This record gives sequence, C-alpha cells and structure tokens, in this order.
Amino acid sequence: MKKIRAAIVGYGNIGKFVLDALETAPDFEVVGIVRRSINNIPDELNNYNVVTNIDQLEKVDVAILCTPTREVEKYAVEYLAKGINTVDSFDIHTGIVELRRNLNTVAQANGTVAIISAGWDPGSDSVVRTLLQAAAPKGLTYTNFGPGMSMGHTVCVKSKEGVKNALSMTIPLGTGIHRRMVYVELEDGYSLEQVAKAVKEDPYFANDETHVIQVESVDEVKDMGHGVNMVRKGVSGKTQNQRFEFNMSINNPALTAQMLVSVARASMVQKPGAYTMIEIPVIDLLPGNRDNLIAHLV
Amino acid sequence: MKKIRAAIVGYGNIGKFVLDALETAPDFEVVGIVRRSINNIPDELNNYNVVTNIDQLEKVDVAILCTPTREVEKYAVEYLAKGINTVDSFDIHTGIVELRRNLNTVAQANGTVAIISAGWDPGSDSVVRTLLQAAAPKGLTYTNFGPGMSMGHTVCVKSKEGVKNALSMTIPLGTGIHRRMVYVELEDGYSLEQVAKAVKEDPYFANDETHVIQVESVDEVKDMGHGVNMVRKGVSGKTQNQRFEFNMSINNPALTAQMLVSVARASMVQKPGAYTMIEIPVIDLLPGNRDNLIAHLV
Repeated sequence: MKKIRAAIVGYGNIGKFVLDALETAPDFEVVGIVRRSINNIPDELNNYNVVTNIDQLEKVDVAILCTPTREVEKYAVEYLAKGINTVDSFDIHTGIVELRRNLNTVAQANGTVAIISAGWDPGSDSVVRTLLQAAAPKGLTYTNFGPGMSMGHTVCVKSKEGVKNALSMTIPLGTGIHRRMVYVELEDGYSLEQVAKAVKEDPYFANDETHVIQVESVDEVKDMGHGVNMVRKGVSGKTQNQRFEFNMSINNPALTAQMLVSVARASMVQKPGAYTMIEIPVIDLLPGNRDNLIAHLV
Repeated sequence: MKKIRAAIVGYGNIGKFVLDALETAPDFEVVGIVRRSINNIPDELNNYNVVTNIDQLEKVDVAILCTPTREVEKYAVEYLAKGINTVDSFDIHTGIVELRRNLNTVAQANGTVAIISAGWDPGSDSVVRTLLQAAAPKGLTYTNFGPGMSMGHTVCVKSKEGVKNALSMTIPLGTGIHRRMVYVELEDGYSLEQVAKAVKEDPYFANDETHVIQVESVDEVKDMGHGVNMVRKGVSGKTQNQRFEFNMSINNPALTAQMLVSVARASMVQKPGAYTMIEIPVIDLLPGNRDNLIAHLV
C-alpha cells in the first residue's frame, strides 16, 4: 500500500502530538518537519528531516499546519498553490466561512484539498452539533467547555506585549457561558493592568467574563486536560423533549493532533476545494477497507 | 424554492412520525402515502393522496420506506429502478454491507440514490461511533441501549406464529451487553413455550439473554421512549485515557422518522449509488444556506 506522505509544519504543542499520531497511523509516512529554524532540534526528531522550507521536502501529499491560528491562511495558500493538500485547526469561529472561501478558490485552481478548522471545537464537536440539529431540528444546543486549558486563548495571551508566559483556563458556567481564568508571568517593566486590558479587549476574550491573574510560574499550574459537555434538547418532527448529551474528558493537543491526522487522510479522497469537517463523510477519517468499516461501525 | 417531493411507503409506527417530520420540514412536500390497502384510512391522512402503488403518485423525488425491515430491499430495488431515491432504516446490522452492495448496483444503473440503515442505530449512532474511532483510533466503544422498546425486535416477535401482540424491551447490562425482555399476548391454541422457542432462535435474539413473558395486554406496558449510552475510552496518537460519552433519551419512532427525513434531503445531493450514514457529510442532512450552516455549527 502506498503511504500518505505528510509534512508537519510548526513543531510546538500540537506538532509534537501530530508526530505521535502519524507514527502510530498505519497508512502515513512522515516526510519531514518544517520549522522557522533548524537550530535546537529536539532529540525525538533526530531521525527526521527538519527543514525551514517545504520545498526542501520531496513529494509531500499533505501539510499538517501546526502554526499559530492566525498564520494558517498564509501557509495554506502557499502550499495549496504548490499542489500540496493542507489541514489545519484554525479556531477563530467568526473567521471560518471567510477562510474556507479563500482557500476554496486557491485549492480548486490548483487541484488540491484543504480541510480547515479540524480539531475538536471547531472539529469533531462540529460534527456532533450538526448531527444533533438533524436529529431534532428545533431546539437549543449548548456547548460547555472545560475546565481546561484553551490552546487558542493561551497563544493569544502569550502574543501580548509584556507577557513572558501564560495559561488561559476555560471554566464552564452552563448553557454555553464561560469564564476565562488567565494566569500570566510578566516581563520586567510591565504592569498587570496594562496586560489585563490588552487581553480583555482581544476578540478572543471580549465576550466572556475574564480574570487576569499574575503568577510566578505558569508551569506550576499547567495541565493540558480539557473537557466538553454538549447538550441538546429539541423536537423531532412534532415530538418534544428529545434529549442528547455528548461528553469528553481529553488531553487537548493530543485530540487536536489526532483529528488533524484523520482529516489529512480524508483530504486524499475529496474533490479539489476547501472543506470544514461537517462537509466530509466521517468514514473518510478512517483507514482500511470500506466494507469492513461499514460492517463494524454502522 | 423547489420543494423535495416525498412519498411515505408504509404507514405504521414510523410512517406516522415521518408524516410529522415532513409536515414540519421547510423544504419538503408530501406527494402521498403508499399503503397495502386504501381501506381504513386514518383521519390525519384525509388531505393526502393515499394509494396502493407508487406509480399512482406524480414526480416522486424520494420514497421514505417505513415498511418492516425485511421488506426494505424489495421496495428499494423497485423504486430505484423507477428513478426514485429511497431511504430506509434497515436495522439488521449483519445484513447492511450486502444490502448496500445490492442497492448500489441498482442505484448506479438508474442514476438514483439510496441511503440505507438511517435511523438512530444504525444511523446517527453510527456517525458518532465512526467519529470517536477517528478521535481515538485504539480503544473500545460500548453502545448500551435502553431501557426501551426495540422496534425491530418487536416487529420480529409479532411476526411469529401464535403471537397476537408483542413488546420487546432492551435492558442495558453495561459494556454493550443487553437483556431482552419480551412481552407477548398469544393467539388461542398456542403455548408460551412454542413462541418463546421461536423468538429465542431468531437471529435478532440468538446472541442475547432473552426472557419471554406472557401478558394479558401489551398496550398496558408499552412506552416508546428509548435511550443510548455510548462510551469510548481510547488512545489519540500515543496519549491514553481519552474518554468520550454520548447519551440520548428519546421517543424512538420520532427520532427514526426525523433521521429518515434528514437523509431523504441528503439523498438529493449525492452522486448515484447506495450509502450508509457514515458515508455522507452531516451538513447534507440540514436545509438552508451552506455558509450560514458553517458559520453557526462549525
């Protein structure tokens, strides 16, 4: 069987777990890792090709983008135009439609496939949310997150001037309302007030109750576990009170990485274009014979 | 907007709820109902065209099969060849691959679409099972049903000689193990032992602990509520103990009917062929503008 040739782009939190998921997948090979610099290469990459430009890697089928979310579009546009599929976990909910539209144009023009916003939320949660809306078209779905570290929010806080290290915790208050508990280590010469204001004004935080707390060591309070409790109560046809609930308790970057690898596989069998996870059949996420999958899973 | 023209085939438990779901859907019209006989038409069908042959209905886009599961293939083959899409909730898990293969041949030859085994299990549960396998590829999923009435099992018991009325309740014992509690009213001249033996030997019951109990009135003990508790504990990449849980508490025929109507919609946008629910994008289950759906659900 010809294996799918994947490149990991960015080797931070997510990138490391993507390597784990690729190493355990039966149908992938790792062509290499693209980083900003080839200095300070971690030991576990000793047997891999680490480069600063994807052109230095041969015959990449799919690039798994593990960059900060705001850099996803730039890399995706570049790689899609080179004939390489891309997958990402772009997580700014309000920007998804536009990102999809932009990447769709590039992908269709170049015969490539992009699968965007493919982590767990947006991502696998989106699939469940859509399915539950089909199961009970009238009603309300509440997605409650946490308690857990939000990767996107944490990266956002870290990008603020004066922040040495940060952790943004999501606390579920029920009915989709969340509190953000932000723990920061500050650079010398910056005040907590300054940083707190910058954080609270960012679109990532503007709609939630947010507390910014200074700590001596972020590492001391860090744990990458996370959770979801999604609830829908709705109407099937004319029948009220249909109840559905989806719960997860997971290592956050590990699940994001696994979903990225699963959609990288799915990208190989879609028509050219850009897709969110709700637009691809879930069977495409899995390796193996289709009849066997249907026999075991349907 | 041109509405999707649907026919309901069979007007038992599921058929009634399919009518509810079609009447509340914004994008469907009911062309008519196909029944074995046009005698004893229920009042709620007074404004509908009730016929004994689908050829008496004009321009049917999709036939929603609400017949006993063992009659699905016969009707589907006939209608697909007439240029009509079909959807069904065929629920014999071991027969799904073969039904799909047979209908796929007919559908492709006639430019039509069949979506099979589209209730809640098989159906929406299958989508969740597949998604969870992609989220944590190594591990175990247990699907626990009930307590609740199993439609398929009840129909099966009713088909046995000597059974006047029946109810098969599914009792979850955990880790995917179930007890079947079967309540029967007998025809005169039949013994409980005879009927119990026939029930226990049927493939529907052969693998489960089954108790057959005689009652004076099945109606007195009947309730169409049902439940699911699906649990997966598995490994994402190399990270253990990823935990997922999906729960439902639902009216059984109402949810089956709603899923049938949702896949009837999806049948209009698939390429010719036969599909299970895990092979179609979940977005296709919903009406409305795609960008809006993506903005609200992803």
